Amino acid sequence: MKALEFYFDFSSPYGYLASHKVEALAAKHGRTVDWRPMLLGAAFKITGAKPLPEVPVKGDYAKRDFLRSARFYGVAFNLPTPFPISTVAPCRAFYAVIDKAKAVELAKALYKAYFVDNLNISEPATVMRVAASVGCEPAIGDQAVKDKTKAQVDAALAKGVFGSPYIVVDGEPFWGMDRFDQVERWLATGGW
Amino acid sequence: MKALEFYFDFSSPYGYLASHKVEALAAKHGRTVDWRPMLLGAAFKITGAKPLPEVPVKGDYAKRDFLRSARFYGVAFNLPTPFPISTVAPCRAFYAVIDKAKAVELAKALYKAYFVDNLNISEPATVMRVAASVGCEPAIGDQAVKDKTKAQVDAALAKGVFGSPYIVVDGEPFWGMDRFDQVERWLATGGW
Repeated sequence: MKALEFYFDFSSPYGYLASHKVEALAAKHGRTVDWRPMLLGAAFKITGAKPLPEVPVKGDYAKRDFLRSARFYGVAFNLPTPFPISTVAPCRAFYAVIDKAKAVELAKALYKAYFVDNLNISEPATVMRVAASVGCEPAIGDQAVKDKTKAQVDAALAKGVFGSPYIVVDGEPFWGMDRFDQVERWLATGGW
Repeated sequence: MKALEFYFDFSSPYGYLASHKVEALAAKHGRTVDWRPMLLGAAFKITGAKPLPEVPVKGDYAKRDFLRSARFYGVAFNLPTPFPISTVAPCRAFYAVIDKAKAVELAKALYKAYFVDNLNISEPATVMRVAASVGCEPAIGDQAVKDKTKAQVDAALAKGVFGSPYIVVDGEPFWGMDRFDQVERWLATGGW
Protein backbone atom coordinates (compact mmCIF):
# COMPACT_ATOMS: atom_id res chain seq x y z
CA MET A 1 0.00 0.00 0.00
CA LYS A 2 1.40 3.35 -1.04
CA ALA A 3 2.10 5.98 1.60
CA LEU A 4 0.03 9.15 1.71
CA GLU A 5 2.13 12.05 0.47
CA PHE A 6 1.65 14.83 2.99
CA TYR A 7 2.91 18.21 1.78
CA PHE A 8 2.92 21.11 4.22
CA ASP A 9 4.58 24.39 5.08
CA PHE A 10 5.87 25.01 8.60
CA SER A 11 4.10 28.38 8.71
CA SER A 12 0.71 27.02 7.66
CA PRO A 13 -1.97 26.81 10.39
CA TYR A 14 -4.01 24.31 8.40
CA GLY A 15 -0.87 22.27 7.72
CA TYR A 16 -0.25 22.26 11.45
CA LEU A 17 -3.79 21.08 12.17
CA ALA A 18 -3.44 18.39 9.51
CA SER A 19 -0.17 17.22 11.07
CA HIS A 20 -2.19 16.21 14.14
CA LYS A 21 -4.70 14.16 12.16
CA VAL A 22 -3.00 12.70 9.11
CA GLU A 23 -1.29 9.74 10.74
CA ALA A 24 -4.43 8.40 12.43
CA LEU A 25 -6.32 8.82 9.18
CA ALA A 26 -3.68 6.91 7.24
CA ALA A 27 -3.31 4.18 9.87
CA LYS A 28 -7.06 3.57 9.91
CA HIS A 29 -6.71 2.48 6.30
CA GLY A 30 -3.44 0.58 6.68
CA ARG A 31 -1.35 3.38 5.20
CA THR A 32 1.71 5.28 6.30
CA VAL A 33 2.49 8.96 5.79
CA ASP A 34 5.35 10.41 3.79
CA TRP A 35 5.97 13.87 5.32
CA ARG A 36 7.17 16.39 2.75
CA PRO A 37 7.62 19.97 3.93
CA MET A 38 7.58 22.55 1.15
CA LEU A 39 7.77 26.33 0.89
CA LEU A 40 4.48 28.13 0.39
CA GLY A 41 6.40 31.27 -0.59
CA ALA A 42 7.78 29.45 -3.64
CA ALA A 43 4.31 28.16 -4.54
CA PHE A 44 2.81 31.64 -4.17
CA LYS A 45 5.28 32.94 -6.75
CA ILE A 46 3.64 30.57 -9.23
CA THR A 47 0.00 31.09 -8.30
CA GLY A 48 0.23 34.79 -7.43
CA ALA A 49 -1.33 34.12 -4.03
CA LYS A 50 -0.54 36.32 -1.04
CA PRO A 51 -0.18 35.29 2.59
CA LEU A 52 -3.67 35.34 4.12
CA PRO A 53 -3.02 38.18 6.61
CA GLU A 54 -2.23 40.47 3.67
CA VAL A 55 -5.55 39.80 1.94
CA PRO A 56 -8.22 42.41 2.76
CA VAL A 57 -11.31 41.07 4.55
CA LYS A 58 -10.39 37.42 3.90
CA GLY A 59 -7.34 37.82 6.13
CA ASP A 60 -9.48 38.77 9.12
CA TYR A 61 -11.81 35.86 8.45
CA ALA A 62 -8.82 33.52 8.18
CA LYS A 63 -7.51 34.44 11.62
CA ARG A 64 -10.91 33.71 13.12
CA ASP A 65 -11.12 30.47 11.15
CA PHE A 66 -7.66 29.29 12.29
CA LEU A 67 -8.68 29.62 15.93
CA ARG A 68 -12.16 28.18 15.49
CA SER A 69 -10.88 25.27 13.38
CA ALA A 70 -8.21 24.44 15.97
CA ARG A 71 -10.91 24.26 18.65
CA PHE A 72 -13.15 22.28 16.29
CA TYR A 73 -10.43 19.66 15.81
CA GLY A 74 -9.30 19.79 19.43
CA VAL A 75 -5.74 20.88 18.64
CA ALA A 76 -3.78 23.32 20.84
CA PHE A 77 -3.12 26.46 18.81
CA ASN A 78 -1.98 30.03 19.29
CA LEU A 79 -1.66 32.43 16.40
CA PRO A 80 2.05 33.29 16.55
CA THR A 81 3.76 36.64 16.07
CA PRO A 82 5.23 37.19 13.53
CA PHE A 83 2.93 35.32 11.16
CA PRO A 84 3.55 34.08 8.54
CA ILE A 85 7.30 33.55 8.47
CA SER A 86 9.92 32.23 6.09
CA THR A 87 10.22 28.49 6.62
CA VAL A 88 13.47 27.82 4.80
CA ALA A 89 15.36 27.00 8.02
CA PRO A 90 12.86 24.44 9.43
CA CYS A 91 12.42 22.92 5.97
CA ARG A 92 16.17 22.42 5.65
CA ALA A 93 16.32 20.99 9.16
CA PHE A 94 13.72 18.39 8.26
CA TYR A 95 15.51 17.26 5.11
CA ALA A 96 18.86 17.23 6.92
CA VAL A 97 17.65 14.42 9.16
CA ILE A 98 18.14 11.14 7.36
CA ASP A 99 16.18 8.93 9.78
CA LYS A 100 12.59 9.40 8.65
CA ALA A 101 10.93 8.74 12.02
CA LYS A 102 13.29 11.22 13.65
CA ALA A 103 12.58 13.80 10.93
CA VAL A 104 8.86 13.46 11.62
CA GLU A 105 9.48 13.86 15.33
CA LEU A 106 11.41 17.04 14.50
CA ALA A 107 8.60 18.31 12.26
CA LYS A 108 6.10 17.90 15.08
CA ALA A 109 8.43 19.66 17.51
CA LEU A 110 8.92 22.56 15.07
CA TYR A 111 5.19 22.93 14.52
CA LYS A 112 4.58 22.90 18.28
CA ALA A 113 7.35 25.45 18.81
CA TYR A 114 5.71 27.85 16.39
CA PHE A 115 1.98 27.31 16.88
CA VAL A 116 1.91 26.51 20.60
CA ASP A 117 5.02 28.08 22.13
CA ASN A 118 5.22 31.12 19.80
CA LEU A 119 8.90 30.55 18.99
CA ASN A 120 10.08 32.11 15.74
CA ILE A 121 11.23 29.07 13.78
CA SER A 122 12.31 31.23 10.84
CA GLU A 123 15.47 31.79 12.90
CA PRO A 124 18.16 29.10 12.42
CA ALA A 125 19.21 29.34 16.09
CA THR A 126 15.65 28.63 17.22
CA VAL A 127 15.39 25.71 14.81
CA MET A 128 18.61 24.28 16.23
CA ARG A 129 17.33 24.61 19.81
CA VAL A 130 14.10 22.83 18.91
CA ALA A 131 16.10 20.16 17.08
CA ALA A 132 18.35 19.67 20.11
CA SER A 133 15.23 19.09 22.25
CA VAL A 134 14.46 15.99 20.17
CA GLY A 135 18.10 14.91 19.95
CA CYS A 136 18.94 16.19 16.48
CA GLU A 137 21.69 18.42 15.20
CA PRO A 138 20.66 19.07 11.58
CA ALA A 139 23.34 20.56 9.34
CA ILE A 140 21.09 23.28 7.97
CA GLY A 141 24.03 25.34 6.71
CA ASP A 142 25.49 22.55 4.56
CA GLN A 143 25.30 23.02 0.81
CA ALA A 144 24.20 19.41 0.34
CA VAL A 145 21.26 19.99 2.69
CA LYS A 146 20.37 23.22 0.91
CA ASP A 147 20.48 21.40 -2.43
CA LYS A 148 18.40 18.49 -1.17
CA THR A 149 15.79 20.88 0.24
CA LYS A 150 15.61 22.83 -3.00
CA ALA A 151 15.22 19.61 -4.98
CA GLN A 152 12.41 18.44 -2.69
CA VAL A 153 10.57 21.77 -2.86
CA ASP A 154 11.01 21.94 -6.65
CA ALA A 155 9.66 18.40 -6.96
CA ALA A 156 6.59 19.38 -4.95
CA LEU A 157 6.00 22.44 -7.15
CA ALA A 158 6.47 20.32 -10.28
CA LYS A 159 3.80 17.98 -8.93
CA GLY A 160 1.39 20.92 -8.68
CA VAL A 161 1.50 21.41 -4.91
CA PHE A 162 0.25 24.98 -4.45
CA GLY A 163 -1.06 24.98 -0.88
CA SER A 164 -0.73 23.48 2.57
CA PRO A 165 -1.74 20.89 3.55
CA TYR A 166 -1.81 19.06 0.23
CA ILE A 167 -2.27 15.31 0.35
CA VAL A 168 -1.81 12.89 -2.53
CA VAL A 169 -3.48 9.49 -2.29
CA ASP A 170 -2.50 7.11 -5.07
CA GLY A 171 -2.05 10.04 -7.45
CA GLU A 172 -5.23 11.88 -6.42
CA PRO A 173 -4.55 15.35 -4.97
CA PHE A 174 -6.49 16.89 -2.07
CA TRP A 175 -5.84 20.45 -0.92
CA GLY A 176 -6.76 21.54 2.57
CA MET A 177 -7.52 20.19 6.01
CA ASP A 178 -11.13 20.48 4.93
CA ARG A 179 -10.67 17.72 2.34
CA PHE A 180 -9.93 15.10 5.00
CA ASP A 181 -13.46 13.72 4.64
CA GLN A 182 -12.82 13.19 0.93
CA VAL A 183 -9.36 11.72 1.62
CA GLU A 184 -11.00 9.32 4.04
CA ARG A 185 -13.59 8.16 1.54
CA TRP A 186 -10.92 7.88 -1.17
CA LEU A 187 -8.85 5.64 1.11
CA ALA A 188 -11.91 3.54 1.90
CA THR A 189 -13.24 3.19 -1.63
CA GLY A 190 -10.33 3.83 -4.01
CA GLY A 191 -12.19 6.74 -5.58
CA TRP A 192 -15.66 7.62 -6.80
CA MET B 1 -34.61 31.15 15.95
CA LYS B 2 -32.69 33.28 13.51
CA ALA B 3 -32.44 32.20 9.87
CA LEU B 4 -29.12 31.10 8.43
CA GLU B 5 -27.82 33.82 6.11
CA PHE B 6 -26.76 32.03 2.96
CA TYR B 7 -24.64 34.20 0.64
CA PHE B 8 -23.73 32.81 -2.76
CA ASP B 9 -22.84 33.77 -6.32
CA PHE B 10 -24.71 32.20 -9.22
CA SER B 11 -21.42 31.34 -10.95
CA SER B 12 -19.91 29.59 -7.91
CA PRO B 13 -19.68 25.77 -8.10
CA TYR B 14 -19.30 25.48 -4.32
CA GLY B 15 -22.24 27.86 -3.85
CA TYR B 16 -24.24 25.61 -6.14
CA LEU B 17 -23.28 22.51 -4.14
CA ALA B 18 -24.17 24.32 -0.91
CA SER B 19 -27.57 25.29 -2.34
CA HIS B 20 -28.42 21.59 -2.41
CA LYS B 21 -27.48 21.02 1.23
CA VAL B 22 -28.15 24.18 3.19
CA GLU B 23 -31.90 23.80 3.70
CA ALA B 24 -31.69 20.28 5.10
CA LEU B 25 -28.87 21.36 7.38
CA ALA B 26 -30.89 24.31 8.67
CA ALA B 27 -34.12 22.33 9.02
CA LYS B 28 -32.35 19.65 11.08
CA HIS B 29 -31.73 22.35 13.66
CA GLY B 30 -35.10 24.07 13.40
CA ARG B 31 -33.77 26.93 11.30
CA THR B 32 -34.76 28.47 8.01
CA VAL B 33 -32.46 29.85 5.30
CA ASP B 34 -32.29 33.43 4.09
CA TRP B 35 -30.96 33.19 0.52
CA ARG B 36 -28.81 36.18 -0.43
CA PRO B 37 -27.14 36.10 -3.83
CA MET B 38 -24.15 38.41 -4.16
CA LEU B 39 -21.56 39.21 -6.82
CA LEU B 40 -18.18 37.55 -6.42
CA GLY B 41 -16.73 39.95 -8.97
CA ALA B 42 -17.45 42.87 -6.62
CA ALA B 43 -15.91 40.98 -3.69
CA PHE B 44 -12.82 40.12 -5.73
CA LYS B 45 -12.24 43.83 -6.35
CA ILE B 46 -11.83 44.19 -2.58
CA THR B 47 -9.75 41.08 -1.88
CA GLY B 48 -7.74 41.09 -5.11
CA ALA B 49 -8.76 37.50 -5.80
CA LYS B 50 -9.02 36.19 -9.34
CA PRO B 51 -11.52 33.69 -10.73
CA LEU B 52 -10.09 30.22 -10.10
CA PRO B 53 -9.61 29.23 -13.76
CA GLU B 54 -7.23 32.18 -14.15
CA VAL B 55 -4.99 31.06 -11.28
CA PRO B 56 -2.01 28.98 -12.45
CA VAL B 57 -1.91 25.40 -11.10
CA LYS B 58 -4.64 26.03 -8.53
CA GLY B 59 -7.13 26.57 -11.36
CA ASP B 60 -6.52 23.07 -12.73
CA TYR B 61 -6.87 21.59 -9.26
CA ALA B 62 -10.10 23.52 -8.73
CA LYS B 63 -11.74 22.07 -11.84
CA ARG B 64 -10.90 18.59 -10.63
CA ASP B 65 -12.13 19.43 -7.15
CA PHE B 66 -15.46 20.83 -8.44
CA LEU B 67 -16.23 17.55 -10.19
CA ARG B 68 -14.98 15.31 -7.40
CA SER B 69 -16.81 17.32 -4.74
CA ALA B 70 -20.06 17.18 -6.70
CA ARG B 71 -19.77 13.39 -6.86
CA PHE B 72 -18.79 13.29 -3.18
CA TYR B 73 -21.96 15.17 -2.21
CA GLY B 74 -24.10 13.36 -4.78
CA VAL B 75 -25.11 16.50 -6.67
CA ALA B 76 -25.56 16.59 -10.47
CA PHE B 77 -22.90 18.89 -11.91
CA ASN B 78 -21.35 19.80 -15.23
CA LEU B 79 -18.63 22.39 -15.52
CA PRO B 80 -20.28 24.93 -17.82
CA THR B 81 -18.80 26.88 -20.70
CA PRO B 82 -18.18 29.78 -20.37
CA PHE B 83 -17.06 29.66 -16.75
CA PRO B 84 -17.13 31.81 -14.71
CA ILE B 85 -19.66 34.36 -15.91
CA SER B 86 -21.05 37.70 -14.81
CA THR B 87 -24.02 37.05 -12.54
CA VAL B 88 -25.59 40.49 -12.47
CA ALA B 89 -28.65 39.36 -14.46
CA PRO B 90 -29.55 36.31 -12.30
CA CYS B 91 -28.82 38.31 -9.14
CA ARG B 92 -31.22 41.05 -10.23
CA ALA B 93 -33.81 38.45 -11.19
CA PHE B 94 -33.67 36.97 -7.69
CA TYR B 95 -34.12 40.32 -5.94
CA ALA B 96 -36.89 41.31 -8.37
CA VAL B 97 -39.08 38.51 -7.04
CA ILE B 98 -40.84 39.71 -3.89
CA ASP B 99 -42.24 36.37 -2.78
CA LYS B 100 -39.34 34.76 -0.94
CA ALA B 101 -40.29 31.13 -1.58
CA LYS B 102 -40.68 31.89 -5.26
CA ALA B 103 -37.32 33.68 -5.35
CA VAL B 104 -35.66 30.60 -3.84
CA GLU B 105 -37.37 28.41 -6.44
CA LEU B 106 -35.98 30.74 -9.10
CA ALA B 107 -32.48 30.59 -7.58
CA LYS B 108 -32.52 26.79 -7.72
CA ALA B 109 -33.75 26.87 -11.33
CA LEU B 110 -31.00 29.33 -12.30
CA TYR B 111 -28.31 27.22 -10.65
CA LYS B 112 -29.62 24.10 -12.40
CA ALA B 113 -29.74 25.94 -15.72
CA TYR B 114 -26.07 26.86 -15.41
CA PHE B 115 -24.48 23.89 -13.67
CA VAL B 116 -26.59 21.07 -15.10
CA ASP B 117 -28.01 22.30 -18.39
CA ASN B 118 -25.04 24.49 -19.42
CA LEU B 119 -27.23 27.53 -20.15
CA ASN B 120 -25.43 30.87 -20.03
CA ILE B 121 -27.33 32.67 -17.27
CA SER B 122 -25.21 35.80 -17.71
CA GLU B 123 -27.59 36.55 -20.61
CA PRO B 124 -30.78 38.39 -19.58
CA ALA B 125 -32.82 36.51 -22.20
CA THR B 126 -31.72 33.18 -20.75
CA VAL B 127 -32.51 34.35 -17.23
CA MET B 128 -36.00 35.35 -18.37
CA ARG B 129 -36.60 31.96 -20.00
CA VAL B 130 -35.52 30.16 -16.81
CA ALA B 131 -37.71 32.50 -14.78
CA ALA B 132 -40.68 31.79 -17.04
CA SER B 133 -40.18 28.06 -16.45
CA VAL B 134 -40.96 28.63 -12.76
CA GLY B 135 -43.72 31.14 -13.43
CA CYS B 136 -41.81 34.39 -12.84
CA GLU B 137 -41.36 37.47 -14.94
CA PRO B 138 -38.73 39.44 -12.99
CA ALA B 139 -38.30 43.07 -14.01
CA ILE B 140 -34.52 42.85 -14.26
CA GLY B 141 -34.30 46.04 -16.32
CA ASP B 142 -36.13 48.23 -13.79
CA GLN B 143 -34.06 50.83 -12.02
CA ALA B 144 -35.69 49.96 -8.68
CA VAL B 145 -34.58 46.33 -9.09
CA LYS B 146 -31.09 47.42 -10.06
CA ASP B 147 -30.93 49.66 -6.99
CA LYS B 148 -32.24 46.94 -4.67
CA THR B 149 -29.70 44.46 -6.03
CA LYS B 150 -26.84 46.90 -5.60
CA ALA B 151 -27.96 47.65 -2.04
CA GLN B 152 -28.11 43.93 -1.21
CA VAL B 153 -24.69 43.24 -2.72
CA ASP B 154 -23.17 46.27 -0.98
CA ALA B 155 -24.67 45.11 2.32
CA ALA B 156 -23.07 41.69 1.86
CA LEU B 157 -19.69 43.27 1.10
CA ALA B 158 -20.04 45.56 4.13
CA LYS B 159 -20.66 42.46 6.23
CA GLY B 160 -17.35 41.01 5.03
CA VAL B 161 -18.71 38.44 2.58
CA PHE B 162 -15.75 37.72 0.30
CA GLY B 163 -16.52 34.25 -1.05
CA SER B 164 -19.25 31.81 -1.99
CA PRO B 165 -20.86 30.09 -0.22
CA TYR B 166 -20.63 32.18 2.93
CA ILE B 167 -22.98 31.32 5.75
CA VAL B 168 -23.64 33.37 8.85
CA VAL B 169 -25.09 31.63 11.89
CA ASP B 170 -26.09 33.99 14.69
CA GLY B 171 -23.31 36.39 13.67
CA GLU B 172 -20.64 33.71 13.18
CA PRO B 173 -19.29 33.57 9.59
CA PHE B 174 -18.37 30.36 7.77
CA TRP B 175 -16.82 30.42 4.30
CA GLY B 176 -17.05 27.42 2.03
CA MET B 177 -19.03 24.26 1.45
CA ASP B 178 -16.25 22.60 3.41
CA ARG B 179 -17.28 24.42 6.60
CA PHE B 180 -20.66 22.69 6.71
CA ASP B 181 -19.37 20.37 9.42
CA GLN B 182 -18.50 23.40 11.54
CA VAL B 183 -21.83 25.09 10.72
CA GLU B 184 -23.57 21.91 11.83
CA ARG B 185 -21.75 21.79 15.15
CA TRP B 186 -22.33 25.52 15.68
CA LEU B 187 -26.05 25.01 15.14
CA ALA B 188 -26.05 22.08 17.54
CA THR B 189 -23.98 23.67 20.29
CA GLY B 190 -24.21 27.44 19.86
CA GLY B 191 -20.43 27.68 19.44
CA TRP B 192 -17.28 26.27 20.98
